[in-house]
Amino acid sequence: MELIDVTNLITKHVESAQIGNGFCFLYNPHTTAGLTINEGADPAVKDDIISGLQKIVPMNYPFKHMEGNSPSHIMASLMGCSLTVMIENNRLVLGTWQKIFFCEFDGPRTRKLHWRMYTT
Amino acid sequence: MELIDVTNLITKHVESAQIGNGFCFLYNPHTTAGLTINEGADPAVKDDIISGLQKIVPMNYPFKHMEGNSPSHIMASLMGCSLTVMIENNRLVLGTWQKIFFCEFDGPRTRKLHWRMYTT
Amino acid sequence: MELIDVTNLITKHVESAQIGNGFCFLYNPHTTAGLTINEGADPAVKDDIISGLQKIVPMNYPFKHMEGNSPSHIMASLMGCSLTVMIENNRLVLGTWQKIFFCEFDGPRTRKLHWRMYTT
Repeated sequence: MELIDVTNLITKHVESAQIGNGFCFLYNPHTTAGLTINEGADPAVKDDIISGLQKIVPMNYPFKHMEGNSPSHIMASLMGCSLTVMIENNRLVLGTWQKIFFCEFDGPRTRKLHWRMYTT
Repeated sequence: MELIDVTNLITKHVESAQIGNGFCFLYNPHTTAGLTINEGADPAVKDDIISGLQKIVPMNYPFKHMEGNSPSHIMASLMGCSLTVMIENNRLVLGTWQKIFFCEFDGPRTRKLHWRMYTT
Repeated sequence: MELIDVTNLITKHVESAQIGNGFCFLYNPHTTAGLTINEGADPAVKDDIISGLQKIVPMNYPFKHMEGNSPSHIMASLMGCSLTVMIENNRLVLGTWQKIFFCEFDGPRTRKLHWRMYTT
């Protein structure tokens, strides 16, 4: 399990798209992964989010799903599978400390991240 | 408490709307219900999400709200009350295993689900 | 920690914007705060959401982040940093009991809330 900072990846696409003002919609199509925005300056925060979720979600409960990764599915729903961020003057509108993280809860696996930008 | 798969219901409306490319926005107007996207192939996963939330949220804590359903309100905020899904060529863009679930945390009750589709 | 009802603030801006039908997008740029929609009629519910989150998130776990506010960061990700609400005839489409709350998890602090309205 890990949070992967994808801010630079998205920023690069937003800048090259040159849509001016609008939104960037991000979507994770996997059921044991998620997306979240949180502090990126201190890498300890992303590790603490993983540690915290592993304390919050019962990791050894006798769940029914036979693959054994029900805690990962629950974490996916707790974080959510999409994010929307405003674009102003071709730049993502993020707070000073905010970074965009892809949340891997059942890896390592090859994962996809969809995005779509649109003007408003 | 139960998760109800509403994917076919939404899919039918998306297909008949014929908007081409855009978004489908879903909104739950209730405060003890929510919306989430997760695995739908094995029905055990939706049951495990309910079991997990009932372990995560303190069910017998002496909450102040006199109706006794504070855990349901907390679950509603944990899941969230809206979802946005992309539409491409008149089809919802969902991952292979993803289904859309209406989360009933204080039922059975008659519930509403709002949606709006728009092109981008 | 507290949930602050910002519904009237947003409603006032939505009404004066006169965009007809569309969406109101709300965004919290802070990493120890969040946004949620829940019951506003009984103020006990917002207090119970705070109490519940303080039971759900381990408050005394030895997290790595040295500022000591990792539980606040985790709560921020559990609630999410944005909300989207439909606008119909210049009014927010909220359920009977729903109110919009800014979630302060590490205050008191001066906070910002971004919003953007757009027609669809």
